[in-house]
Amino acid sequence: MQNTQVLLAARPVGFPKLSDFRVVQTELPELKEGEALVEVIYLSVDPYMRGRMSEGKSYAAPMQIGDVMVGGVVGRVLRSNDPSLSYGDYVEGFLGWQKYGIAPAKQLRKLDPAAGPLSAALSVMGMPGLTAYFGLLDICKPKRGETVVVSGAAGAVGSIVGQIARLKGCQVVGIAGTDAKVKWLTEELGFDSAFNYKTAPDIYAKLKDLCSKGIDCYFDNVGGTITDAVFGLLNPNARIAICGQISQYNNVKPELGPRNLSQILVKTATVRGFLVMQYLDQAREALIEMGGWLREGKLKYRETFVDGLANAPQAFLGILQGDNTGKMLVRVAPER
Amino acid sequence: MQNTQVLLAARPVGFPKLSDFRVVQTELPELKEGEALVEVIYLSVDPYMRGRMSEGKSYAAPMQIGDVMVGGVVGRVLRSNDPSLSYGDYVEGFLGWQKYGIAPAKQLRKLDPAAGPLSAALSVMGMPGLTAYFGLLDICKPKRGETVVVSGAAGAVGSIVGQIARLKGCQVVGIAGTDAKVKWLTEELGFDSAFNYKTAPDIYAKLKDLCSKGIDCYFDNVGGTITDAVFGLLNPNARIAICGQISQYNNVKPELGPRNLSQILVKTATVRGFLVMQYLDQAREALIEMGGWLREGKLKYRETFVDGLANAPQAFLGILQGDNTGKMLVRVAPER
Repeated sequence: MQNTQVLLAARPVGFPKLSDFRVVQTELPELKEGEALVEVIYLSVDPYMRGRMSEGKSYAAPMQIGDVMVGGVVGRVLRSNDPSLSYGDYVEGFLGWQKYGIAPAKQLRKLDPAAGPLSAALSVMGMPGLTAYFGLLDICKPKRGETVVVSGAAGAVGSIVGQIARLKGCQVVGIAGTDAKVKWLTEELGFDSAFNYKTAPDIYAKLKDLCSKGIDCYFDNVGGTITDAVFGLLNPNARIAICGQISQYNNVKPELGPRNLSQILVKTATVRGFLVMQYLDQAREALIEMGGWLREGKLKYRETFVDGLANAPQAFLGILQGDNTGKMLVRVAPER
Repeated sequence: MQNTQVLLAARPVGFPKLSDFRVVQTELPELKEGEALVEVIYLSVDPYMRGRMSEGKSYAAPMQIGDVMVGGVVGRVLRSNDPSLSYGDYVEGFLGWQKYGIAPAKQLRKLDPAAGPLSAALSVMGMPGLTAYFGLLDICKPKRGETVVVSGAAGAVGSIVGQIARLKGCQVVGIAGTDAKVKWLTEELGFDSAFNYKTAPDIYAKLKDLCSKGIDCYFDNVGGTITDAVFGLLNPNARIAICGQISQYNNVKPELGPRNLSQILVKTATVRGFLVMQYLDQAREALIEMGGWLREGKLKYRETFVDGLANAPQAFLGILQGDNTGKMLVRVAPER
């Protein structure tokens, strides 16, 4: 059986190019004992993939040239060599950029299509939602009345962070890159305020104006000059969750910036980098709570779809430059 | 009664000069109800005082021009308007750079001269010792077998940090600024290794060599390029206590450096600034444990004395350039 795969063709230098990817036709291997064959319906493209394309040491080994691009998917089981899955079951798993994927059944999460849209398993009810949930609640630990700032606020993670912070009684300020995103955050998602960093004449002054009581919690998806401005406004004992640094991912040479450790010292702040994988044992409980908020209409989300596996590279380049509002997904096959 | 005081004469620009201080003779005010008059014996000079001399916002209000320089002292009670203190009692308190100080008795800690040298109340059994204790144990949380790196390792705080980390079964690497300090750390204090950052051709390479299993805990007193090198060698889930940033205190303009948040992210590290004041409610228990280690010979310390209050500015400039080994103290009056 023929498969279509998107491979890493070259390590990007700076901002990735379409030529860094290659679409190939390959033959699917035989299904082994305990494995399932899955037809991919939705593919998630996420900023962290940029890190895996580079050679540098990180929390996960880098991809090698010629590897299938990594990524989470939602799909449908076509064949199963494991009693836990049957033909037609919907599953979520880490199968990568391809039309069909094979994985041990125990690495696939079975989805209930009656519980909600399948795509949500890759957004609010999946990795981005859990990232928002644990990064905010376990690292920022926001208290009622505190001021929470979120960068990358209109992304798949940031948009959920701000809404949960509102549910916890915080004053929430979002930073995003278009006026339409700002409008969505404040008018639909209930952020107290938000602004477009690309058109603000002075990010620090704008933040100072919106955060009149200083900043207690910062959920950082972007890094760079936006984060520099936030550090200047931290309150004593501020908590900062480092979720992403998308402004830095495409630097050819590491960028210099103002040293931040003196700020961390005088504000007795805590800065912590985290990965959602660290919280997998608590994911079930978190999804139950998130599901409740969704059903009660307290949590909203948006997904941006791009059609066709061949367009996955373009969709991925899009998220690196902020084309998405909410979660960016590639529709590889129809749901049926 | 005449007093001698050292005042802040001018806000330093860059490295402080002797002319930033002024020695004056003043008349002591009347003792109020509940207060005690203390003759200063030892005055502590510490790097944090550099911050108080500047105008910038910090955890404490800056001193004003003409204020008596702040600082901890050990002294002898000459008169007391409070039943808790009597003539001849030894006390420790925050009385500043002067020959005599007046404070409410309840702000003074009574010392038992039989328990050990009086000066220790300003070093191992005082603020620097407690800073080392809580910063290491509460923030770095070192586990047996882990690698702990300490910068400013031969200072009043760093020298204690390394020894406590050894007591906890860690591999301890110290960074200091003279060969004599390095020798003291390894030959007398039991550090596993140490090196002179001023003569090391490549700090990163040296650290990499000494920390073959990476760095789990970092106790930072200095910041700057030394800290940049450490960040490149952090292990997953590293813990970093920011105690001081002495390399940055005399910068006229904030220095740029490599952005560190991506490192914090990929290593899921925790960086925390702290002040010893946050732990005052646990100080008693800590001093009991530290006292035990001292009596058992498991903890060693060194004090550098400079004679005469008029030499306090010079002693202070000395610690900013690393003249001290262990704690720097000014002997203002004899113990008798």
